[in-house]
Amino acid sequence: MASVPVAIIMGSQSDWATMRHAAETLDALGVAYDARIVSAHRTPDRLVAFAKGAKAEGFRVIIAGAGGAAHLPGMTASMTPLPVFGVPVESKALSGQDSLLSIVQMPAGIPVGTLAIGKAGAVNAALLCAAVLALHDPALAERLDAWRKRQSDSVAERPSDEG
Amino acid sequence: MASVPVAIIMGSQSDWATMRHAAETLDALGVAYDARIVSAHRTPDRLVAFAKGAKAEGFRVIIAGAGGAAHLPGMTASMTPLPVFGVPVESKALSGQDSLLSIVQMPAGIPVGTLAIGKAGAVNAALLCAAVLALHDPALAERLDAWRKRQSDSVAERPSDEG
Amino acid sequence: MASVPVAIIMGSQSDWATMRHAAETLDALGVAYDARIVSAHRTPDRLVAFAKGAKAEGFRVIIAGAGGAAHLPGMTASMTPLPVFGVPVESKALSGQDSLLSIVQMPAGIPVGTLAIGKAGAVNAALLCAAVLALHDPALAERLDAWRKRQSDSVAERPSDEG
Amino acid sequence: MASVPVAIIMGSQSDWATMRHAAETLDALGVAYDARIVSAHRTPDRLVAFAKGAKAEGFRVIIAGAGGAAHLPGMTASMTPLPVFGVPVESKALSGQDSLLSIVQMPAGIPVGTLAIGKAGAVNAALLCAAVLALHDPALAERLDAWRKRQSDSVAERPSDEG
Amino acid sequence: MASVPVAIIMGSQSDWATMRHAAETLDALGVAYDARIVSAHRTPDRLVAFAKGAKAEGFRVIIAGAGGAAHLPGMTASMTPLPVFGVPVESKALSGQDSLLSIVQMPAGIPVGTLAIGKAGAVNAALLCAAVLALHDPALAERLDAWRKRQSDSVAERPSDEG
Amino acid sequence: MASVPVAIIMGSQSDWATMRHAAETLDALGVAYDARIVSAHRTPDRLVAFAKGAKAEGFRVIIAGAGGAAHLPGMTASMTPLPVFGVPVESKALSGQDSLLSIVQMPAGIPVGTLAIGKAGAVNAALLCAAVLALHDPALAERLDAWRKRQSDSVAERPSDEG
Amino acid sequence: MASVPVAIIMGSQSDWATMRHAAETLDALGVAYDARIVSAHRTPDRLVAFAKGAKAEGFRVIIAGAGGAAHLPGMTASMTPLPVFGVPVESKALSGQDSLLSIVQMPAGIPVGTLAIGKAGAVNAALLCAAVLALHDPALAERLDAWRKRQSDSVAERPSDEG
Amino acid sequence: MASVPVAIIMGSQSDWATMRHAAETLDALGVAYDARIVSAHRTPDRLVAFAKGAKAEGFRVIIAGAGGAAHLPGMTASMTPLPVFGVPVESKALSGQDSLLSIVQMPAGIPVGTLAIGKAGAVNAALLCAAVLALHDPALAERLDAWRKRQSDSVAERPSDEG
Repeated sequence: MASVPVAIIMGSQSDWATMRHAAETLDALGVAYDARIVSAHRTPDRLVAFAKGAKAEGFRVIIAGAGGAAHLPGMTASMTPLPVFGVPVESKALSGQDSLLSIVQMPAGIPVGTLAIGKAGAVNAALLCAAVLALHDPALAERLDAWRKRQSDSVAERPSDEG
Repeated sequence: MASVPVAIIMGSQSDWATMRHAAETLDALGVAYDARIVSAHRTPDRLVAFAKGAKAEGFRVIIAGAGGAAHLPGMTASMTPLPVFGVPVESKALSGQDSLLSIVQMPAGIPVGTLAIGKAGAVNAALLCAAVLALHDPALAERLDAWRKRQSDSVAERPSDEG
Repeated sequence: MASVPVAIIMGSQSDWATMRHAAETLDALGVAYDARIVSAHRTPDRLVAFAKGAKAEGFRVIIAGAGGAAHLPGMTASMTPLPVFGVPVESKALSGQDSLLSIVQMPAGIPVGTLAIGKAGAVNAALLCAAVLALHDPALAERLDAWRKRQSDSVAERPSDEG
Repeated sequence: MASVPVAIIMGSQSDWATMRHAAETLDALGVAYDARIVSAHRTPDRLVAFAKGAKAEGFRVIIAGAGGAAHLPGMTASMTPLPVFGVPVESKALSGQDSLLSIVQMPAGIPVGTLAIGKAGAVNAALLCAAVLALHDPALAERLDAWRKRQSDSVAERPSDEG
Repeated sequence: MASVPVAIIMGSQSDWATMRHAAETLDALGVAYDARIVSAHRTPDRLVAFAKGAKAEGFRVIIAGAGGAAHLPGMTASMTPLPVFGVPVESKALSGQDSLLSIVQMPAGIPVGTLAIGKAGAVNAALLCAAVLALHDPALAERLDAWRKRQSDSVAERPSDEG
Repeated sequence: MASVPVAIIMGSQSDWATMRHAAETLDALGVAYDARIVSAHRTPDRLVAFAKGAKAEGFRVIIAGAGGAAHLPGMTASMTPLPVFGVPVESKALSGQDSLLSIVQMPAGIPVGTLAIGKAGAVNAALLCAAVLALHDPALAERLDAWRKRQSDSVAERPSDEG
Repeated sequence: MASVPVAIIMGSQSDWATMRHAAETLDALGVAYDARIVSAHRTPDRLVAFAKGAKAEGFRVIIAGAGGAAHLPGMTASMTPLPVFGVPVESKALSGQDSLLSIVQMPAGIPVGTLAIGKAGAVNAALLCAAVLALHDPALAERLDAWRKRQSDSVAERPSDEG
Repeated sequence: MASVPVAIIMGSQSDWATMRHAAETLDALGVAYDARIVSAHRTPDRLVAFAKGAKAEGFRVIIAGAGGAAHLPGMTASMTPLPVFGVPVESKALSGQDSLLSIVQMPAGIPVGTLAIGKAGAVNAALLCAAVLALHDPALAERLDAWRKRQSDSVAERPSDEG
């Protein structure tokens, strides 16, 4: 059960271009995950089944990405006690402003921890999952610290014209 | 059963201040309705039961009002073949801009016919329901025509300082 | 009369790139339609003639697409008792935010059921028309159910890197 | 007939609270006007009759104020060769942002000279009318110059705590 | 003097890509104009000289186009009694939303009749100038009517897949 | 030390009106917390000290609320491996839109799980903390389930005019 | 002459409610200033005279506050080599979003250092002036350091329910 | 010490494409600068060290550019008495609207003089630094005047089709 602590769900195949960055970041941190397509609108039964069963499946944290009228993160959060982190996928006409508001403006009672629009949000959802899991996983905590230290060390002192 | 063609659902008691205008408009047009609270986030089971059963209950059209990250109209539409009309309730911080985008920006495949933010949208959702039902109800069509004619006739020729 | 239940109107030839998705969706559902250019601003007489005559022409539902200061859906709705569904066409500078607000923010009294900006909205306008017509057309209701089921079935379980 | 060069039209009685500032400014400049309610949505026939007949009625310039999905200025402009100036009335939920975009974002071919949201826009619509009429009315040109000079002279040199 | 009734001014050479559409429209209507670069920020003396001298130069109407913090239309209007029409040029980061608000939101006292963002606004500024000048130029009024009629006639009845 | 798993920090005393809802929710769930004022701008040293020492102090999760150019959540996250949840406090002029974007749009590498603007966000930040802590605290998990169940049960079936 | 290093200018008497906070902050820091009303639109000659003469008058830094289509800061900057700091005054309909964009989005070549909308911006404009002047005024630098230290010291450790 | 009066700092290498325009403008004005990467989020220690030491290093003015949730300018300003000028770098999804609000909406007490989004803002930050430094550097004041005069002289009288 503990071997797959993170579920990455997304509303459609096209969201994978964004959400794969969450997957790659979890890979880099040595955190196992399962990536699935769960469309709140086109597969509501799958959504209900997934959300209600997520805890029993052994997941600990859920990353949900969606765009436009993005209902997947909030609806998942309404049917699971697990922490849900939402990634607003950049939409075509409104550049993800609709995705962001649809995810973050949840009413009191059902939280979704929302990250930035697009790729940065996907990477950060993975890091936030890792931070949560690291609370009881000292080895992961060390890997996360090392990841953060490498990130800090990689920042050059001065800008480069080749940059 | 067929005597109640319209369901008015809303996410919380506080939405009633807006949605009652839909009810009053249906009253004026002689269209029966049933008004219920169905919270997508706090009562997801009720949402699923309502949406999946709405057609069998005899409803023909659904009006759904919600505010903020407003998922109720879209999630209802994902689980019923009935036409769903959405009313963005004015939210506190963002004045209903979040409600509007969360309702109207549905992905291809699951439509929600969205009306204006707030009271005007609630009135108009009722009128749109009536227009749909009037397609096969000549008596209602006549009442709707009369309602629209009264509305036109009520527009004064000139503005009044007492206005 | 009943052979062409849907009118698709749009403000200009350039809107066809968006609105053809409504036409193609109606084709897929076996719903007849008539597509016309009716510019609220450049051909106001054509607008009045169309809107006032739409019911007599035998149309049951109207889909109207327009961009920028998009007056076509609302003005059509003001002159016909038929249900009108509006599609905000993505505009150049403001990405359809102007189109959306010009269509959805109708005052109480004249409703336009508004769909999403762009292609998704055009597809969904067609689906909403079909849902309305299916209320009294069991064969269409079956085709719509089948369309929705195929849509659900087509959602892959997992994202693909080839996607 | 020529004695009433300006028509002030508005979508509803409630717009008069804004549009009366246009009337008062014309009063101050000695420009005759006729103020009418013409609702694009609730009285489309009145709109067509007014717009098509405005030139023959002797009007030279039209001021049109409306809020929300504000179609009155643009639709009037589509049916008259007279210059039309639009005033976006402040709307409830969106503070006139919808009114502004619905009026100003007209497609190429039918212009509406748009002023600021609310009272300032109403005053300025009157001043712009006066500037247009003053092109062939030297006495009005003098009154307008005097009005502008008084305005400049009325600006205090320093702010006052009693201000 | 009367031979050049319209001044087209713009904030920089780069605005010409937009403002040339005003010039071409005036060409099509047989209205003479003078196009100049007047930068409110980089050539404030030129702005003052132009605006204060515009009436004496024989101009009747001024079209002013600018982008970003677009001060040219409003500052010109503050120094001339002539009607000023503003064209918000599409800006890079904010797509002309900054240009639009900087031009249209003038305080009570100094009006700028504002057109749409970009090319459509430039075309319409020219048409609005023509409408103003046509009030006392019957030949121009006829050309403007003919232009509008050709525009109406050019709208095809049905959309074309070749469009 | 371990008895206080949650730190609630905020940028100023005035944020307490919002953030107290986080505190009250944690109270209701039986989760201990420590509420402090840490101004990123006015007390940067306190910020550095708090953020760097938070883990050693025994905190497990941090809730950070701030308004306007809200830098507190992101800067805290940059100096601690603990999960940070951000609450955008409603600002005066921009209603919290600035707060929201300043908190949620973090670059890849440093995540802040962001909740809704204002009171709802504060309540939800507390619930999200509880969900995280409940992963290893079965008693808390039960209390959280009970809280959610009570919330669901409290939703009335029908709207009330007394509501 | 050198005794009044700061000019505070504003577009109208009504801006004083905001700009007095700049004055009070300068008072607290012992920096002399002169507060004047200079309307870019209603008193353009005064604007030109002020801006061109500001350096000769002995001013070192200029604070300019305005609302709506706020042209005062940018036009002043176009006619003086002195540093200009702009304060967007909160406008009625658009809450200062128009003011902000009209001030901050200056084209390359003429800078305006822009502060926050409203009172916070006015206070900060004064502090920024003081920081500039303190570069060559060690006594002021000390007063500014003391002001900042008092500000830091005044931040309570914990929120108070009486706050 | 006085030989490097300006520090240009930025949040990442990718910001250099924007911020190099500040550097090039300072080059053109003969003002020495030091350009460094200081990431508020990825290198908070470097930020603290830089900001606290900037005055002692001999810097007089700081230009800080960042994008998205841009905390660098404000956090730097919180730890130095030197004037800080902020440049909002254009972000991907939100075109720099997030960057702008995150920089400009600082609370009362800690000012950041904010310039336009993107390249224009970078150029103008350099010009504003020069204006500040020129207050006590007559030779620089002359170079700045000459730069501004060349800029004014370079504005062509008329637009060119080759432009």
